[in-house]
Amino acid sequence: MLKINENYLKLPGSYLFSTIAKKVSAYQEAHPEKKIIRLGIGDVTRPLTPTVISALHSAVDEMAEAATFRGYAPDLGYEFLRNAIADNEYKARGCDIKADEIFVSDGAKCDSGNIQEVFSLDNKIAVCDPVYPVYVDSNVMAGRTGLYSEESGKFENVIYMPCLEENGFAPEFPEEVPDIIYLCFPNNPTGAAITKEGLQGWVDYANKNGSVILYDAAYEAYISEPGIPHTIYECDGARTCAIELRSFSKNAGFTGVRLGYTVVPKDLVRGGVDIHSLWARRHGTKYNGAPYIVQRAGEAIYSEQGKEEIKGLVSYYMRNAQYILDGLKKAGYSVSGGVNAPYIWLKAPDGMNSWEFFDYLLEELNIVGTPGSGFGPAGEGYFRLTAFGTYENTVEAVDRIINR
Amino acid sequence: MLKINENYLKLPGSYLFSTIAKKVSAYQEAHPEKKIIRLGIGDVTRPLTPTVISALHSAVDEMAEAATFRGYAPDLGYEFLRNAIADNEYKARGCDIKADEIFVSDGAKCDSGNIQEVFSLDNKIAVCDPVYPVYVDSNVMAGRTGLYSEESGKFENVIYMPCLEENGFAPEFPEEVPDIIYLCFPNNPTGAAITKEGLQGWVDYANKNGSVILYDAAYEAYISEPGIPHTIYECDGARTCAIELRSFSKNAGFTGVRLGYTVVPKDLVRGGVDIHSLWARRHGTKYNGAPYIVQRAGEAIYSEQGKEEIKGLVSYYMRNAQYILDGLKKAGYSVSGGVNAPYIWLKAPDGMNSWEFFDYLLEELNIVGTPGSGFGPAGEGYFRLTAFGTYENTVEAVDRIINR
Repeated sequence: MLKINENYLKLPGSYLFSTIAKKVSAYQEAHPEKKIIRLGIGDVTRPLTPTVISALHSAVDEMAEAATFRGYAPDLGYEFLRNAIADNEYKARGCDIKADEIFVSDGAKCDSGNIQEVFSLDNKIAVCDPVYPVYVDSNVMAGRTGLYSEESGKFENVIYMPCLEENGFAPEFPEEVPDIIYLCFPNNPTGAAITKEGLQGWVDYANKNGSVILYDAAYEAYISEPGIPHTIYECDGARTCAIELRSFSKNAGFTGVRLGYTVVPKDLVRGGVDIHSLWARRHGTKYNGAPYIVQRAGEAIYSEQGKEEIKGLVSYYMRNAQYILDGLKKAGYSVSGGVNAPYIWLKAPDGMNSWEFFDYLLEELNIVGTPGSGFGPAGEGYFRLTAFGTYENTVEAVDRIINR
Repeated sequence: MLKINENYLKLPGSYLFSTIAKKVSAYQEAHPEKKIIRLGIGDVTRPLTPTVISALHSAVDEMAEAATFRGYAPDLGYEFLRNAIADNEYKARGCDIKADEIFVSDGAKCDSGNIQEVFSLDNKIAVCDPVYPVYVDSNVMAGRTGLYSEESGKFENVIYMPCLEENGFAPEFPEEVPDIIYLCFPNNPTGAAITKEGLQGWVDYANKNGSVILYDAAYEAYISEPGIPHTIYECDGARTCAIELRSFSKNAGFTGVRLGYTVVPKDLVRGGVDIHSLWARRHGTKYNGAPYIVQRAGEAIYSEQGKEEIKGLVSYYMRNAQYILDGLKKAGYSVSGGVNAPYIWLKAPDGMNSWEFFDYLLEELNIVGTPGSGFGPAGEGYFRLTAFGTYENTVEAVDRIINR
């Protein structure tokens, strides 16, 4: 008799964003006349840029002719894309990452969820609290976390590193040394950045303890201040302790195009085994490459014109972030983030908890945001708004809040 | 100190097709003047059809305008595609499968590798021998198989069901009842089909024993004879015991486009839990949907024109299959498959083992095929050729064999 994976039953409720989507469509169905503004899920709204569109059309044309048709992609991604990434994201920043250390994929969410597979179930993970839910949930499903406590909002075998107003939303070294450390900077959901010095501290800590850092840098393009690292490989020693997860979703607007990559340096060795070969094996066995046309679209953002267009997209959303920040401050909210990240993190007013504030915003102002508690127990009482709406909707939403 | 997933170290050598690719490129590098004909990996060579190309271009244009731009896809796939699949693949065949039981993905290889995650590590799997390597390898990585024995070529905790000339390449019910049964028909690598009666037997067996069948029907479009089921849901009772894996790679030539789907009927319940909800949770947490433009391409193959074009592609490859079958018989080989599947399965001549015959074909005739032993111990002494080459190359390869 087949047995199911009981670990799945330890997950409380459904995936955060699925729950929100259901709540919103239920409300919209009941109130079809209301104009709901969505500043919840981190989905972009600007169309793909001309350079990307042109690359997609060209690649589609190639697929129409036998002479230029492409079947299965190379396991780890096409060289044209891996070289463009290596040159522009790493070499240009003085980081020693080779093209063959880059694994192209269909997105950072998949990689974030799958990367834990190459590690033993005996490892203990540490996460920032609050945090992007995929890190914890994928470890729950694998059986690495133990049981969930309704009371604490925590899994018994996970190390939570609280990121609160009091510590500037920066995680502190935990008392118990974790084997796997998930870090995401610029941070989702708090919008906080980490300094080069701060990140170097984590790299040193991991190297000293034999831990591995899984560094999610999906929001790197939004960094606007100096002294903030764009990649963990700017830090000395990161090649022996860090894996970096990157995305084309938030810089180039590829949320519906699906493209990302993971960097596993060949110097990252544990128990005599290089992690690069394990991840390569996983790719070879359980993945079949990102679509050729999508990889060509990814390459296009590294042309001169492509780079300018990406800057334009980022500026567009950061103007929204500024408007939200200013407006919420004016309305008396306690806010952070929004300077090096497209997320604004605010405290729910009047002692409301996160879901109460969610319901208030949805039902009273017809605005969708994301409850901070959905990102972990230390997110309770906080709330996330994203800068990914249209400018017009963002202005309207903020004005609704101010004029309430 | 981080520990790796030691299960990965139990895998003997690298993924079959990666090994072949390395051997071939080493040979080509040493002999740049030789024209190597690839009838090894099951990759298609015909370009995408006009209807698909046109759907891709239209969808790309939609992504260029804010009003029609699409970000994150719905977790389980766009309704337009799920409806088209439900209508054309299931309703049209009298099978009771609803659109919301269909999970769109980036391909059957990924789904084949990932589906085992929703089951307990305590389950015992059964596979045909020989078999597509992903089924066993993904279970090895998860820790479900025990150790590999060099002597037997088998993992200690896997039930192998030999498919040999003697039993018409059809698996027999194993003595020990498995929890999870992988079946692939039309079969990769033997090219054998299963009758409706034969498949009904497996469905009854699974229902009686509480097992779950993972039915890989990636080659369904190649069925040319009557009485061969195109989907397992043609069998009574399949809704309570079977998951079906399907692909757009081999019918529509999407190997480099990446699109597939998995059907999990809501009646499939074990231990009081419906597997549909587990797979939905996995999709929601660890996957982010197939690209919008690719899902539109998938929808296009269900138009009248699209269906005709797909038939044309299948006919093209099946002419190759016929040429290979006839030629090899003429050359005195013992061959099977090639009638309801794009694979031809042959016995290596002169007592050669599979890899010896691989080397012989590569070095003497500059033809790449796939060693049967790479698919399991019962494949030793056998060899797979595919019909996915161009007609011209297929003819040239067969003529090289005949004229040797």
